[in-house]
Amino acid sequence: MKIGFIGLGRMGSGMATSLLRAGHHVKVYNRTASKAGELTKKGAVAVSRISDACDADAVVTMLANDAAVESVVYGAGGLLTSLPKGRVHVSSSTISVSLSERLAADHANTGQRFVAAPVLGRPDVAAAGDLSVIVAGDNDAIQDVAPILDAIGKKTLVVSDKPKTANLVKLSGNFLIASVIESLGEAVALVAKDGVDRETYIDLLTSTLFNAPVYKTYGKLIVEGKFEPACFAAPLGYKDIRLVLAAADDLRVPMPVASLLRDRFLTLLAHGGDKLDWSAVGQLASRDSGT
Amino acid sequence: MKIGFIGLGRMGSGMATSLLRAGHHVKVYNRTASKAGELTKKGAVAVSRISDACDADAVVTMLANDAAVESVVYGAGGLLTSLPKGRVHVSSSTISVSLSERLAADHANTGQRFVAAPVLGRPDVAAAGDLSVIVAGDNDAIQDVAPILDAIGKKTLVVSDKPKTANLVKLSGNFLIASVIESLGEAVALVAKDGVDRETYIDLLTSTLFNAPVYKTYGKLIVEGKFEPACFAAPLGYKDIRLVLAAADDLRVPMPVASLLRDRFLTLLAHGGDKLDWSAVGQLASRDSGT
Repeated sequence: MKIGFIGLGRMGSGMATSLLRAGHHVKVYNRTASKAGELTKKGAVAVSRISDACDADAVVTMLANDAAVESVVYGAGGLLTSLPKGRVHVSSSTISVSLSERLAADHANTGQRFVAAPVLGRPDVAAAGDLSVIVAGDNDAIQDVAPILDAIGKKTLVVSDKPKTANLVKLSGNFLIASVIESLGEAVALVAKDGVDRETYIDLLTSTLFNAPVYKTYGKLIVEGKFEPACFAAPLGYKDIRLVLAAADDLRVPMPVASLLRDRFLTLLAHGGDKLDWSAVGQLASRDSGT
Repeated sequence: MKIGFIGLGRMGSGMATSLLRAGHHVKVYNRTASKAGELTKKGAVAVSRISDACDADAVVTMLANDAAVESVVYGAGGLLTSLPKGRVHVSSSTISVSLSERLAADHANTGQRFVAAPVLGRPDVAAAGDLSVIVAGDNDAIQDVAPILDAIGKKTLVVSDKPKTANLVKLSGNFLIASVIESLGEAVALVAKDGVDRETYIDLLTSTLFNAPVYKTYGKLIVEGKFEPACFAAPLGYKDIRLVLAAADDLRVPMPVASLLRDRFLTLLAHGGDKLDWSAVGQLASRDSGT
């Protein structure tokens, strides 16, 4: 397929790499053009305008937040004016439920199609093409972009015909990960202060009830206490918890753990956490306990 | 080995069954004697006094709470006066860290030995002999009761030479499970109110980052909303969270999620949760959201 790819951060670069590996023709755009360098060596064509990336069967966007997506879609020469009728915007960014709803409506009004396809997985998983892709949208549109979804993900999970629902499910996943980070941080702080070796403890957990990637990945990060360079930076984690709470506000769903996590992220950011991986939230309990 | 086994609730009966299956000679005692019936058919000898169960190489206790253990150990004819010198008390109950510390000291003073061996797993796992056994105590004592630990568990994990540390690690595990129940309950409440099928959602989670027994077991319970009969009753879960907080008090470790869970269990118990499985905490968020 001819694919435009917009947003070459750590996740986006990995996903674009997977698309190239699968043999697709990929035009890449990034606000900071230098980030396209590595990808052009792998066969991508770097373009300097969003509208050039829109000469494609579909355009994938993978951007940091709502503001970046709004700029790329609604800005001058953006997707809304540049993407030909009938073509598909595949939005993989973790954005708010309300923006996803607005994008679906506006693309429909201009005769374009919109598929929400947020992903689960960290940058190394993205580069390997092993992401889990949570998909929602019109079934025909999903079928038309299936080769894209297959290339970036190991698994494609269609959750609804309303695009916004994929974003909600993705946000709920990040909430669950953050809650594991916090709970694990509290448990480690407790046993470590009694003298238990942190690594032994995580080994014990992940060899029994808790033998899932989420406990292994974040248990290791918390034990090592190495939060730089950030794979997924704390401000992004904070953003996602706020988006979870915004969706919960709209749906009228009280979420006490999510509310608590918001405060934990604020504490981390107030103590110089801007450059740290979000797993640094898992060290707050140890710090609070004086160890 | 000649083993005394005290406490024939759902967990204890399963563990005693595993000991019999491994070929040990097992004398069983329970305050309500009728519970020994099934086990005698499997070869156990039922005794009517705790002191009779103490004529053994080791005595295993598996009781509901601190008060029951105190009664069995310190009461008239209890372990402290009846267990011969040099023999081992293997304590598998989930008790407070402070009681475990007191038992270790008092058994040592009377020339007996004490091994803390709390277990991870629900009753069906106990009956299969597949528990994870978290062990702490004097190394020689642990070696001497190794055939017991091997029979009840699939895995034996020695965490310290201080018995109380095994109890702390066990409690921390129950805290982590309870935090999964609560977080999963909040996530399910959020996506379900947007129309996502609960079962599909849990399938999605447990096929990706969260493919651990804890998410599968409790995800299923929350989705089915079937909390009776209780496998692990809510008052026991509440007790364990309080014991976690008591240990955290002593160690000076603030645990905000554990504090929140205490209130969630209180809410459940205040709404008729006494007979429900502790996983019913995972339905509070849905109830709060009006669904």
